[in-house]
Amino acid sequence: MTDLNTLTAIRAALAAGPGPDVMARDGAADRNAQLTKPPGALGRLEDLAQWYAGWVGDARPRITAPQVLIFAGNHGVATQGVSAFPAEVTAQMVANFRSGGAAINQLSDLAGATLDVHALDLATPTADFTQGPAMTEAEVCAAFTTGWTAVDPMADLLVTGEMGIGNTTSAAAMATALLGGTGWAGRGTGVDDAGLARKEAAIQAGLAVNSGRSGLEVLAALGGRELAAMAGAIAAARAHRIPVILDGFICCAAALCLNAEDETALDHCVAGHLSAEGAHARMLHALGKAPLLSLGLRLGEGSGAALAIQILKGALSCHSGMATFAEAGVAGG
Amino acid sequence: MTDLNTLTAIRAALAAGPGPDVMARDGAADRNAQLTKPPGALGRLEDLAQWYAGWVGDARPRITAPQVLIFAGNHGVATQGVSAFPAEVTAQMVANFRSGGAAINQLSDLAGATLDVHALDLATPTADFTQGPAMTEAEVCAAFTTGWTAVDPMADLLVTGEMGIGNTTSAAAMATALLGGTGWAGRGTGVDDAGLARKEAAIQAGLAVNSGRSGLEVLAALGGRELAAMAGAIAAARAHRIPVILDGFICCAAALCLNAEDETALDHCVAGHLSAEGAHARMLHALGKAPLLSLGLRLGEGSGAALAIQILKGALSCHSGMATFAEAGVAGG
Repeated sequence: MTDLNTLTAIRAALAAGPGPDVMARDGAADRNAQLTKPPGALGRLEDLAQWYAGWVGDARPRITAPQVLIFAGNHGVATQGVSAFPAEVTAQMVANFRSGGAAINQLSDLAGATLDVHALDLATPTADFTQGPAMTEAEVCAAFTTGWTAVDPMADLLVTGEMGIGNTTSAAAMATALLGGTGWAGRGTGVDDAGLARKEAAIQAGLAVNSGRSGLEVLAALGGRELAAMAGAIAAARAHRIPVILDGFICCAAALCLNAEDETALDHCVAGHLSAEGAHARMLHALGKAPLLSLGLRLGEGSGAALAIQILKGALSCHSGMATFAEAGVAGG
Repeated sequence: MTDLNTLTAIRAALAAGPGPDVMARDGAADRNAQLTKPPGALGRLEDLAQWYAGWVGDARPRITAPQVLIFAGNHGVATQGVSAFPAEVTAQMVANFRSGGAAINQLSDLAGATLDVHALDLATPTADFTQGPAMTEAEVCAAFTTGWTAVDPMADLLVTGEMGIGNTTSAAAMATALLGGTGWAGRGTGVDDAGLARKEAAIQAGLAVNSGRSGLEVLAALGGRELAAMAGAIAAARAHRIPVILDGFICCAAALCLNAEDETALDHCVAGHLSAEGAHARMLHALGKAPLLSLGLRLGEGSGAALAIQILKGALSCHSGMATFAEAGVAGG
């Protein structure tokens, strides 16, 4: 891999991203038509299996090596009173991830996924974006690179999650900058009306003092290290042709920066779930992604996406394990 | 168990069904409030865990022994040209279930569930309900008993699925009789417009010649052996306090008969998914159940419910495996 130490280098890496293997995808479509079920009866599972087959380049694949990556970062904007929790909770939750006590640990175990936790300079929060850019070019590139290199090239599915007190404010600011409109701020972990007003004020201040509007400029100016690392991991997954399940509002904000740079940058991604964070539905709509689950989760950590691994596993189990009409001697094939 | 050889005996068994263990459910709610997440952040998973805890009588349970039961039956009404597939496919698919080639085999394996297949007198279809009752009292009771006794009392979760060419017509007729209105017939495995018209005509004929309108009378008159067996299994699960995940349109039609007899009869059930069979949403609304998944499945076999086992497993993994704020040393508990 070329050093990703400038935004220009990252842009070049995104532009070099491969597409799916059309032969494998077509082979999967042929197989799907022969399986012992009425045409289309497995609904979205059929589409998922063919999409996955194309990206991994195998017409009859299984998911055997999913990877969950958690990135944690601290945010200067947290000093604006935008979260219901103190900034210390970021490091405390990292310890909880490492000792196996968080929701994502349980959901990763259930999915048979490896879980790697990367804490990014927690003792040094990013700059407060209401005063200027959250990160320098060097800082955002370093975090992006951490994410990129965290991806196991042998993984066959990737989920990226995050932890960072204040990061729904960053994500909402990024959405405002990249998609326009208002109302991107939500309740996050549970702020009250006054906290929500402080989030909205911080977002307006951040947009006023930060002028860059490309995907990567917005990531640097309004994002945070865990957001940049998620973007790097998602981009690396495409380079390795590893399918990705996107998580909730914050993960999708990171993905949005890639999408703003290159409209094919998320072709290897599906949306794992619709979060209860208010503006997530609008963000998924902007990304053109329909969620696999809608269960009112709003935890982050990659939890909704990790739960959705099971849906994708189910799709591939059916696709690759079922008998064909000819094999089973069933009429109607 | 008392012999369930009359509708009166079945009614008595339904009336004797237990409720949940309120102490266990409350204990689960207490535990949920202490877990390392913002309140409510796991959304519906939190409700599911507490509901499940109440039914199995354990405030911190795991799902370790799910059972999937498939019942197959043939329908006299199939001679009315109501299906896109010939009646022989019922037995062919039973063979496919037994040799491991169907979707439900793959999804049961993925969920770690046992799968038992019960073929109910396939060589002797029920009577054509457009001419009179599909089943005698003795026949419906025998099928109900087959379902009741098929449930493993040691299972900790039950999914009931079905196979039966013509059975979306039976299910739609049952819904029409029990819920009223029109438009309950759908495309099933994929009938064309003429087939759909034949389904609607068969339903109207069936209602004209069959007068009983209680849940069990409707099950006998318009149902089929696999529908009666599913009803029996769902009722037995309640007697054993085993939670149930309901499958699609046909499973829910069987459940509807129990609900019509006793409005608490499905308190131990959740809806696994919203089927693409058109009227399933109306049926779930009538049952007061919100589906866990909505992925456009319309296969039957218990496939959507088996996939939803993973969601319930995820809920219990989080509930029973996560650390509390005190255990993890995280602020905010």
